[in-house]
Amino acid sequence: MDKKQMTEIILDTKMKKEVSWDDLATATGLNPVCVAAACLGSASLNDTEAAAVVKELDLGIEVEKMLKVFPLKGEGQVVPSDPLIYRLFEIAYVYGASIKEVTHEKFGDGIMSAIDFTLDVDKVEDPKGDRVQITMTGKFLPYKKW
Amino acid sequence: MDKKQMTEIILDTKMKKEVSWDDLATATGLNPVCVAAACLGSASLNDTEAAAVVKELDLGIEVEKMLKVFPLKGEGQVVPSDPLIYRLFEIAYVYGASIKEVTHEKFGDGIMSAIDFTLDVDKVEDPKGDRVQITMTGKFLPYKKW
Amino acid sequence: MDKKQMTEIILDTKMKKEVSWDDLATATGLNPVCVAAACLGSASLNDTEAAAVVKELDLGIEVEKMLKVFPLKGEGQVVPSDPLIYRLFEIAYVYGASIKEVTHEKFGDGIMSAIDFTLDVDKVEDPKGDRVQITMTGKFLPYKKW
Amino acid sequence: MDKKQMTEIILDTKMKKEVSWDDLATATGLNPVCVAAACLGSASLNDTEAAAVVKELDLGIEVEKMLKVFPLKGEGQVVPSDPLIYRLFEIAYVYGASIKEVTHEKFGDGIMSAIDFTLDVDKVEDPKGDRVQITMTGKFLPYKKW
Amino acid sequence: MDKKQMTEIILDTKMKKEVSWDDLATATGLNPVCVAAACLGSASLNDTEAAAVVKELDLGIEVEKMLKVFPLKGEGQVVPSDPLIYRLFEIAYVYGASIKEVTHEKFGDGIMSAIDFTLDVDKVEDPKGDRVQITMTGKFLPYKKW
Amino acid sequence: MDKKQMTEIILDTKMKKEVSWDDLATATGLNPVCVAAACLGSASLNDTEAAAVVKELDLGIEVEKMLKVFPLKGEGQVVPSDPLIYRLFEIAYVYGASIKEVTHEKFGDGIMSAIDFTLDVDKVEDPKGDRVQITMTGKFLPYKKW
Amino acid sequence: MDKKQMTEIILDTKMKKEVSWDDLATATGLNPVCVAAACLGSASLNDTEAAAVVKELDLGIEVEKMLKVFPLKGEGQVVPSDPLIYRLFEIAYVYGASIKEVTHEKFGDGIMSAIDFTLDVDKVEDPKGDRVQITMTGKFLPYKKW
Amino acid sequence: MDKKQMTEIILDTKMKKEVSWDDLATATGLNPVCVAAACLGSASLNDTEAAAVVKELDLGIEVEKMLKVFPLKGEGQVVPSDPLIYRLFEIAYVYGASIKEVTHEKFGDGIMSAIDFTLDVDKVEDPKGDRVQITMTGKFLPYKKW
Amino acid sequence: MDKKQMTEIILDTKMKKEVSWDDLATATGLNPVCVAAACLGSASLNDTEAAAVVKELDLGIEVEKMLKVFPLKGEGQVVPSDPLIYRLFEIAYVYGASIKEVTHEKFGDGIMSAIDFTLDVDKVEDPKGDRVQITMTGKFLPYKKW
Amino acid sequence: MDKKQMTEIILDTKMKKEVSWDDLATATGLNPVCVAAACLGSASLNDTEAAAVVKELDLGIEVEKMLKVFPLKGEGQVVPSDPLIYRLFEIAYVYGASIKEVTHEKFGDGIMSAIDFTLDVDKVEDPKGDRVQITMTGKFLPYKKW
Repeated sequence: MDKKQMTEIILDTKMKKEVSWDDLATATGLNPVCVAAACLGSASLNDTEAAAVVKELDLGIEVEKMLKVFPLKGEGQVVPSDPLIYRLFEIAYVYGASIKEVTHEKFGDGIMSAIDFTLDVDKVEDPKGDRVQITMTGKFLPYKKW
Repeated sequence: MDKKQMTEIILDTKMKKEVSWDDLATATGLNPVCVAAACLGSASLNDTEAAAVVKELDLGIEVEKMLKVFPLKGEGQVVPSDPLIYRLFEIAYVYGASIKEVTHEKFGDGIMSAIDFTLDVDKVEDPKGDRVQITMTGKFLPYKKW
Repeated sequence: MDKKQMTEIILDTKMKKEVSWDDLATATGLNPVCVAAACLGSASLNDTEAAAVVKELDLGIEVEKMLKVFPLKGEGQVVPSDPLIYRLFEIAYVYGASIKEVTHEKFGDGIMSAIDFTLDVDKVEDPKGDRVQITMTGKFLPYKKW
Repeated sequence: MDKKQMTEIILDTKMKKEVSWDDLATATGLNPVCVAAACLGSASLNDTEAAAVVKELDLGIEVEKMLKVFPLKGEGQVVPSDPLIYRLFEIAYVYGASIKEVTHEKFGDGIMSAIDFTLDVDKVEDPKGDRVQITMTGKFLPYKKW
Repeated sequence: MDKKQMTEIILDTKMKKEVSWDDLATATGLNPVCVAAACLGSASLNDTEAAAVVKELDLGIEVEKMLKVFPLKGEGQVVPSDPLIYRLFEIAYVYGASIKEVTHEKFGDGIMSAIDFTLDVDKVEDPKGDRVQITMTGKFLPYKKW
Repeated sequence: MDKKQMTEIILDTKMKKEVSWDDLATATGLNPVCVAAACLGSASLNDTEAAAVVKELDLGIEVEKMLKVFPLKGEGQVVPSDPLIYRLFEIAYVYGASIKEVTHEKFGDGIMSAIDFTLDVDKVEDPKGDRVQITMTGKFLPYKKW
Repeated sequence: MDKKQMTEIILDTKMKKEVSWDDLATATGLNPVCVAAACLGSASLNDTEAAAVVKELDLGIEVEKMLKVFPLKGEGQVVPSDPLIYRLFEIAYVYGASIKEVTHEKFGDGIMSAIDFTLDVDKVEDPKGDRVQITMTGKFLPYKKW
Repeated sequence: MDKKQMTEIILDTKMKKEVSWDDLATATGLNPVCVAAACLGSASLNDTEAAAVVKELDLGIEVEKMLKVFPLKGEGQVVPSDPLIYRLFEIAYVYGASIKEVTHEKFGDGIMSAIDFTLDVDKVEDPKGDRVQITMTGKFLPYKKW
Repeated sequence: MDKKQMTEIILDTKMKKEVSWDDLATATGLNPVCVAAACLGSASLNDTEAAAVVKELDLGIEVEKMLKVFPLKGEGQVVPSDPLIYRLFEIAYVYGASIKEVTHEKFGDGIMSAIDFTLDVDKVEDPKGDRVQITMTGKFLPYKKW
Repeated sequence: MDKKQMTEIILDTKMKKEVSWDDLATATGLNPVCVAAACLGSASLNDTEAAAVVKELDLGIEVEKMLKVFPLKGEGQVVPSDPLIYRLFEIAYVYGASIKEVTHEKFGDGIMSAIDFTLDVDKVEDPKGDRVQITMTGKFLPYKKW
């Protein structure tokens, strides 16, 4: 079994048993984005978390072990053509330089970490149409000079 | 004058006069990311906003006019190698599919708009190291069937 | 079963039973382009629509379920070399900037939505040779400033 | 003078004199998209049309001559990152195969010409938000066997 | 069965039975390049032609049906590295702009159709070494203005 | 002066003096495609030919010398988006493998040379619309084994 | 069986039977590079040569036939990352323009054929470390003007 | 002055003074390919060699200094479309894997150095057409294990 | 069996038996990075080393043989999106030119060998957070002139 | 003045005045790689450091100011063809996955920071040929789950 087969089994079972990402989040005590990343093969879980996912979906030890393997992250199209995912690239194309300017003004030379990092996806209700809110929080890492 | 020359003049003057993005935000009533996007040539301003930028920086009518032109957005490297901007791509590579899963679970088939959209960059103070918080909020656009 | 296998089964059955896209459009109450997009794995159907497709083609529950899954859209060649599909790219290369100019003149800064969007393919009879007419209608989304 | 310089002069003058694409369309008897394509360097004009553009904008013989030169069409990014233009690529990614299926069903094996071709951009008023309508009409060219 | 499997079966049988493209051309009344394009999956045949190919090679109904399906044309490397095929790209790199100049001089603004199009490959005997002659004939399509 | 400047001067003068490629072909005794290739910087001329071009256009010694320099051939877009030039790539995508099959059947393993090679562009009059005929003739080069 | 399967069988057998490329070269009367090219699927053999390879490795008629098929040459990475193969690309990047200059000075405008071509790999013993010597010899093909 | 300007001056003077690469090779005691590499900006010269080039061409101290700067080597197209240079890539595509096999058989795991390396371009006279001979000799570098 | 299957078997067994890279390093007398490279298919082992790996993991002769085959190194994404591996590319983007400058200043024109080369990954304990230390040591190869 | 012009002036002056990176390192109290990165436009300096560079090279206030601007880092070729810089990519291609395995074994899931990071280039004298030693030390950043 590899990560790809693990993902197929999980998605298939999840659909059949009608388990949601929210259910898996509750079961593991993690954010739904974070547990989805592990199930899709872009993150790893610890013993307790992996056991919780497998129990919730009633899967076997092979899946449980594979959930704990440190993954090779982020294989796929260089620029994805799926419209939902592409919008994240478009935001980087249109606002990337502006985010850089404002971050530098507030923090100095450095970056937002994408490792010591959390991400939430929330629904903001709005009479003119509900809104998707994505909140990214990453440690500021100042450039070290030496 | 084109957008590129406009940006050079603005950045040069901004550095010499020590005007910050926050100053320009206050002057225009806009978010600093939003006014930076306009000054960097990825967004347009209306009459009042353009006048405010030009007044704050003490620049001429040519710059003011150019700030109001609708821009060709987002030219540059397909995958930028600047570390701060690249992290936005890395987040999309590692968490893009998870964001898609969770958004679909919460909203159904559709996307977060990158047009009817706002973006804030904030500093979250933390004794273990300050954190950069990027909050994106976009209207959910459900796929229309016909 | 995944979307790709679903498409293979549908196309195979469709050819053997000589069911047309128009038949599937009638059965579902959708536009033929829209129902084709779902059968080719670029869109999802609701319960009634999926049931109608499966009934028309006399297929099973697996296909029906898969038609309702929200798809990862648009995988393939970055610039397709099939002549019919390439022409859509050629039109964007040759007239994209002009469409941008005229749209901005009529609507201001913003875009045509590709999500809140419909598309028709029609035959326009013409003694000098029939013509293909593609009509795209998408909601205008003005750039929001914040 | 080359096409690029011609475009710069035309856009500059057009902005200063506040001439619209609609004005140039009226002056030349062409569709605004078509005259914009010529002014942006993706199409050529005949003697009368070029003279009309130059007269409307009060420009010289050099621009007039250059408008009549047959252009090298469509140079730029392989996949443009400007959001408005990118949507045309997204439509081709998501619906290209469906357009192909439906076109083949209605016409047989062949393509829609992008040369013997017209394109309109219209505003469709709608209380829920105005809509952009793009209508493409191209001669059907059946594959010739030999 | 898909186009790729169809091609494998045809090439395999063709080699075992020692049937040439010329034999298939005679059987179908088509040019050898044209019938090869259909067998390799880049063109479709009508009922009579498909039946003739299948009869000549003594294959079954599945292959016959698949030969009539309208193909997705031209998948492969963006720039093929096979030397024979690459030379066609090299000719376009070295002489493409010259062909454009001379075509425009003889015909005005427009293109040679690659759809209403025939192509012959002939052997021209020459004491200094035989020569390959490729003759392409396509309808001139003038750019339509509108 | 480099090849690019040479080309600009030649094209500019050619337009002003209304000299055609046919005129330059007659003056040099070369095919119009061949002389255009030299003037566009993809081929070199000998002393007599360069002198003839320069005389016909009434240009100076600098241009004459530059026409004789052996060029770096074929710089530009990997896959050109100009519709006329792209059709040559499309023909290679759709028929390249078929041309390979038929050439191998007629000649054995080897290629058509693109160096010991001639190319003609002709107009074939046709009541249903004139046709562009491109005839390529290149020496067959058999693969040498050693 | 296709070329890829043929190569797998040959390499597997070659390793098990400890047959060297030199042995296959002796058996066929060809250069080791040339016979390796055929076994790896980038060249074809004639009847005698294919029979000799198959006899030396004790393989069957399927492999023998496949060795005689004219191959689609050179599929793989655009720029290979294997260090040994990459060095050939590096040499072309660093010395390509110089080889072009010197070749033109010695021969005029034209190229070294890669078809009427031989290539040897030799070991040159050297007390400071043995050296790899690659000798390429190709017919000079002068550019033909027409 | 940068390397690019240095190359322009050298090539311009070399053409005007009719100095050959062989002359520069004699003047410097280097191989013509090696001195051409330095003049084209892909290699550096030592004091004596740089002085000899500058003396032969009667150029100034700026060029002499720039010839001694260690260059950034090999900028240009990823896969060059100039036919002479492309042939080197084609050889690597078609024979790269075979060269690898034979080198490994003769030397073990390792590579031919492209740094401790020489390259000659020679003319081999042949009644059937002269041949270009390129001889590359590089130190074998065995993979070091540790 | 090929290298890919070999790697799958080794990784699978390694996980099940809980053998570490350090264990395999001790067993073979090699650095953990070096033995990992062999097990992942990017390096080859000699007889003793391959036997030691196979003994430690209790695997068969097929794996042992395959570990000794000289590999095709480095297939994968042109720029990997896995964050840990990408950082190596980022370091080259940000500091590559500086490493070049300093190396040239210390050694003259030449490079660090990536073949006669060793690489260590060490943990440097630090109260503010442990640090990863990567030490690369490669023979300096001066550019040879000839 | 922009970063590119700043770099040109610094490199030019540095060559004329024969100031080394070591001199600039001593003057600023930084590592030579670190100060070179700033001078080449990939890092920024603080007030004292920038003043020291400018004093050492006897340059003006414009350069000093520009050295303090936070740079857009790492623009250039996606995969550099300069042999010295390419070796860093080759090391990542050949050993990247192994470095990942060993890092994960020693530290768990996470990465080596390229921001909180130092890099030294040293000369290790060796009778068989001096060696380049590159030591990278970056903080280990464990993946945060949330």
